[in-house]
Amino acid sequence: MMVVMKAGSSQEEVQQVVSLVKSWGLEAHLSSGEERTVIGMVGDTRKVQKEVFFHFPAIERIVPISHPYKLASREFIPNNSSFALDGVIMGGKGVVVIAGPCSVESRSQILETAHAVREAGGHALRGGAFKPRTSPYAFQGLGEEGLEYLAEAREATGLPIITEAMSPEQVPLVARFADVIQIGARNMQNYALLHAAGESQHPVLLKRGMSATIEELLMAAEYILSHGNRRVMLCERGIRTFETATRNTTDINAVPVLKNMTHLPVILDPSHSTGNWKYVSAIARAGVAAGADGLIVEVHPRPEEALSDGGQSLNPQRFAEMVCQIRAIAEAVDRTLATSKVEVPAC
Amino acid sequence: MMVVMKAGSSQEEVQQVVSLVKSWGLEAHLSSGEERTVIGMVGDTRKVQKEVFFHFPAIERIVPISHPYKLASREFIPNNSSFALDGVIMGGKGVVVIAGPCSVESRSQILETAHAVREAGGHALRGGAFKPRTSPYAFQGLGEEGLEYLAEAREATGLPIITEAMSPEQVPLVARFADVIQIGARNMQNYALLHAAGESQHPVLLKRGMSATIEELLMAAEYILSHGNRRVMLCERGIRTFETATRNTTDINAVPVLKNMTHLPVILDPSHSTGNWKYVSAIARAGVAAGADGLIVEVHPRPEEALSDGGQSLNPQRFAEMVCQIRAIAEAVDRTLATSKVEVPAC
Amino acid sequence: MMVVMKAGSSQEEVQQVVSLVKSWGLEAHLSSGEERTVIGMVGDTRKVQKEVFFHFPAIERIVPISHPYKLASREFIPNNSSFALDGVIMGGKGVVVIAGPCSVESRSQILETAHAVREAGGHALRGGAFKPRTSPYAFQGLGEEGLEYLAEAREATGLPIITEAMSPEQVPLVARFADVIQIGARNMQNYALLHAAGESQHPVLLKRGMSATIEELLMAAEYILSHGNRRVMLCERGIRTFETATRNTTDINAVPVLKNMTHLPVILDPSHSTGNWKYVSAIARAGVAAGADGLIVEVHPRPEEALSDGGQSLNPQRFAEMVCQIRAIAEAVDRTLATSKVEVPAC
Amino acid sequence: MMVVMKAGSSQEEVQQVVSLVKSWGLEAHLSSGEERTVIGMVGDTRKVQKEVFFHFPAIERIVPISHPYKLASREFIPNNSSFALDGVIMGGKGVVVIAGPCSVESRSQILETAHAVREAGGHALRGGAFKPRTSPYAFQGLGEEGLEYLAEAREATGLPIITEAMSPEQVPLVARFADVIQIGARNMQNYALLHAAGESQHPVLLKRGMSATIEELLMAAEYILSHGNRRVMLCERGIRTFETATRNTTDINAVPVLKNMTHLPVILDPSHSTGNWKYVSAIARAGVAAGADGLIVEVHPRPEEALSDGGQSLNPQRFAEMVCQIRAIAEAVDRTLATSKVEVPAC
Repeated sequence: MMVVMKAGSSQEEVQQVVSLVKSWGLEAHLSSGEERTVIGMVGDTRKVQKEVFFHFPAIERIVPISHPYKLASREFIPNNSSFALDGVIMGGKGVVVIAGPCSVESRSQILETAHAVREAGGHALRGGAFKPRTSPYAFQGLGEEGLEYLAEAREATGLPIITEAMSPEQVPLVARFADVIQIGARNMQNYALLHAAGESQHPVLLKRGMSATIEELLMAAEYILSHGNRRVMLCERGIRTFETATRNTTDINAVPVLKNMTHLPVILDPSHSTGNWKYVSAIARAGVAAGADGLIVEVHPRPEEALSDGGQSLNPQRFAEMVCQIRAIAEAVDRTLATSKVEVPAC
Repeated sequence: MMVVMKAGSSQEEVQQVVSLVKSWGLEAHLSSGEERTVIGMVGDTRKVQKEVFFHFPAIERIVPISHPYKLASREFIPNNSSFALDGVIMGGKGVVVIAGPCSVESRSQILETAHAVREAGGHALRGGAFKPRTSPYAFQGLGEEGLEYLAEAREATGLPIITEAMSPEQVPLVARFADVIQIGARNMQNYALLHAAGESQHPVLLKRGMSATIEELLMAAEYILSHGNRRVMLCERGIRTFETATRNTTDINAVPVLKNMTHLPVILDPSHSTGNWKYVSAIARAGVAAGADGLIVEVHPRPEEALSDGGQSLNPQRFAEMVCQIRAIAEAVDRTLATSKVEVPAC
Repeated sequence: MMVVMKAGSSQEEVQQVVSLVKSWGLEAHLSSGEERTVIGMVGDTRKVQKEVFFHFPAIERIVPISHPYKLASREFIPNNSSFALDGVIMGGKGVVVIAGPCSVESRSQILETAHAVREAGGHALRGGAFKPRTSPYAFQGLGEEGLEYLAEAREATGLPIITEAMSPEQVPLVARFADVIQIGARNMQNYALLHAAGESQHPVLLKRGMSATIEELLMAAEYILSHGNRRVMLCERGIRTFETATRNTTDINAVPVLKNMTHLPVILDPSHSTGNWKYVSAIARAGVAAGADGLIVEVHPRPEEALSDGGQSLNPQRFAEMVCQIRAIAEAVDRTLATSKVEVPAC
Repeated sequence: MMVVMKAGSSQEEVQQVVSLVKSWGLEAHLSSGEERTVIGMVGDTRKVQKEVFFHFPAIERIVPISHPYKLASREFIPNNSSFALDGVIMGGKGVVVIAGPCSVESRSQILETAHAVREAGGHALRGGAFKPRTSPYAFQGLGEEGLEYLAEAREATGLPIITEAMSPEQVPLVARFADVIQIGARNMQNYALLHAAGESQHPVLLKRGMSATIEELLMAAEYILSHGNRRVMLCERGIRTFETATRNTTDINAVPVLKNMTHLPVILDPSHSTGNWKYVSAIARAGVAAGADGLIVEVHPRPEEALSDGGQSLNPQRFAEMVCQIRAIAEAVDRTLATSKVEVPAC
């Protein structure tokens, strides 16, 4: 349920309503738009005595939120949410391209990749230091050493860093080194981790679980948002179906469905959603054509030598070609590639 | 297994190999490219005595086909297959837009829709006269009366017609009225129907079953191709998954995967694959961005009054906007909208 | 919607209501129970003028049927439907075991299998003469020759015969040779075939499509029932999911769900639903424990030599062990193995 | 890879091999059967110099383990693993019935349920104190207070306790109060939690993720086992498919498949796998018929008042009937209900 304040309400009038809402044991979340302020009431709203609101002349109307997710819904915040990552705007008109290897494997590998990403016009660097692996015997990532190499790559290239935290304890560590905390598909409903990410107030990239519904993805985002952390982006990375020709099935429908349901930025990961570099550029184009705000793509200097996910990684040259294709698609849907401190090459 | 003839082989040399292949009880399918002829051997190839081929100097080499589908594979025919539908090229550089109502409901409805499709720049008219319906009590289509209205719409607008045949007996009837026989998702593995469609030598649009794998789709196409009917196009129309936010899940991966595996034209149906008109244009754009050769879209003059599938139908104005978007995407991937006798409007 | 007549209504009173129902353009389906008669009204029931019924004192009440399937629902026929197959009762207290090879491969193979099935206590013989195969190049069955061998096996063993028809034209032929017409999973929504099977008035075993919902299975049965053919049994044969350890996923839930929703007999096919003989007996036991009225199991004298589906076929000895296990489970749920003309061996 | 020692090898001979294995940087896991000892080598086995083993006469042979899971495989431990829970044997001939509410809601509710479970012949009490809920606004469990009530219920009834830990930090707390730590479906690939559960050396019930493959479930178990914690049981709780008639699809195939692949006890949860109390008993019977070693069932004194999952909970009377049915099925497959300190009622 939300309280829509009249245009031009004073801060004091807003605070009176907030106090009232809190007096019922509910949380009050403010969304201040250009014209008016909306107060979201979250909690057991059966306690709300609607008739009391009639005594507040600054209240325009009371609106129910029809979805189980509240703060994530377009009803609560009608316009696209956007925020800056070291100068790159997520959720704006510009499409953001995040790229990098599955795993940070060595200092030289991540530096080489970062330069390649930057030269091709990528906006941010991804790379796993902590790796969730199906097998306990597989390479589990370089850990903190990997985070240090990522920080060095940021310094060298100016690219903001996205990397995964796998448990609540890793959140402060990852937040110290990275610009965005990634929550992986396997952890989409790891509620202790969502709590920690919410409390960190750090930007979060939340990946959809491989068999999570779109609504469950939004409910997972709601866990983070309900801690007051508004900088959340959602990532479609393929779902699990009967089809075996590709590693996962890209749920391209999720892109317009999410854009319709939520104000949060929507990112597509064409690497995991296909599992095969041959199909990555086509699906990246499809994602932007369908309305995605960004892409997160696996790039490796020598995919055939990668310690993980080599088969779905683009090499630097193919990545550069993909960026050019994405620019053309972005323009065809009245968007652009996002601008950044880094100069973008000609295609 | 296929026999690749040397460049410049004579017709007589080709015929000698064909005779040999037939003498082993196998079928011989010819594919004559610009430079050389390839002879596909289909049947129980254990009977092939490879050493006999050494005596034919016009044979360049013998190549195994590694997939269970043979005639459908890119190994057998490396270049895109294309064919004309009343002047519109399917499988060429131009993207083809097929549109129309789920069901032919009345003479006036189909004529009105046909004019709207034509005016917006659509290339062909779809509409069901025989309708496969989950319930025996639901509207089952107008039958032959519907076919006559479609024929009238073609005469009035010049648009070629695509409509479904549901049983082997309907194939000759549908072939008499329509330019393309559609085989629906529920009938993708109705082998008697595939036989009949193959024998008809009429162009066929084959829809993927709602839980058929991509390989099974190609095997179903192989049933038609093995009757010598080469004019087959494949249609991705959404698969069945756990997600309930949309009617089906568009398997956008299927577009580049099919383009990689087969030479046949690939069409996307964004109406059934989403089940919601709000998402149709976004998914249509995604399909063309991913490499689809065409689209088949549900359009109804007044979707809210449609006897079936109204919720996923575009009205004429939204369809016209979609065509303009598709043109922009096609150009962004170095293609165009297909040309036709009908003049295309400006966007 | 259905009209429930008062206990003891005369045939004349029932006929008056039937005439009234038909006068509105609806079909009237009679179900005569021990105490009272129920008249199902099928068609566009908006034409029903409920108040007219008040003038018929023999009418007890009017009841809506809340499901899209009517004649298949437990609301319309509350008790289990049952019918005899050459003396074997389907849908009664006794569990029925149908067994035989995937394909009829030769006269000797089917005779040998039939004797083995009979000796182990099986009640009916399955075997495909027309085979729906994914590949046009795979063995497609012996056709009418296979039907003749099946008829000979029936004569030799007294076992009733179940075999598949793949198209409307095959229905009369199959009905001439077999006791039950099987409609395969790929054809569950082949409406022309469902029509023909309905019109034949021959018993039908309807297999669930590999990604059909339970409701769609009941709607497919409704197509057959609406032609007045009441002898329909439903078969769960595994659904398609992401799991790859087995060929399909046995939807064991479908057994109690179907028993709850419909009066029709429910059969389980543990061979297709697992795809691996090692798991067939365990899943057969599970099916009977969950309430299945019968099983249909693949048995081959020498599975390692089978032309199709050898990997999921039991050999005669393992089949005999399975029958003994099924008897024990049947007794644990207060049922028995069905009785037949054939004497059942001791375990 | 594993080293099979000759029958009658001395402890010293075994230790020599263990030292050798460790000298290559590998872990050595011992499995001492009745006749012979097997040493599992885990880690990067490319370092193994096989020819060195020839110098150890007590080694019988070296056997590769063909699966990615090693310690969980039947190759490594051919016989069923079993262990006692306060006198109740898990993984033995007796079938174990675990029951209780979804959530611990109050002291009186859990005590009342515990007595009902005990009186019906249940062997252990389940109940959630920490609840993973899709919505951040839903009831999240009583936390430590709930654990205290569970401990009190154990004292009152003698039933061992199973309850969920949702994060690594909760593991020591849960281990202090409960006999078995449950890892829920959403956390099956929460590797930090699997680590903590492995290190705790406490018995673990590991639930299959709702779209995890059987192999992924075994790999998750391997994470726990690789910490030396051998007391792990696996739980099938339904997978996510397209079917909507039930909350999940019980993958009954998983029961015999797991029994074939692993030595660990296999439990079925018919409550989550159906989501409807009407189907719980039928699926519980199916599970035991298919070979499950135990069941975990939701029971609530008044399901209609439950704070969570009421729709799938049995009331005490229906639960008592289910236990009697399970006993009959267990006997039909040559098993029994497990014995416990608690006297079992007559049926």
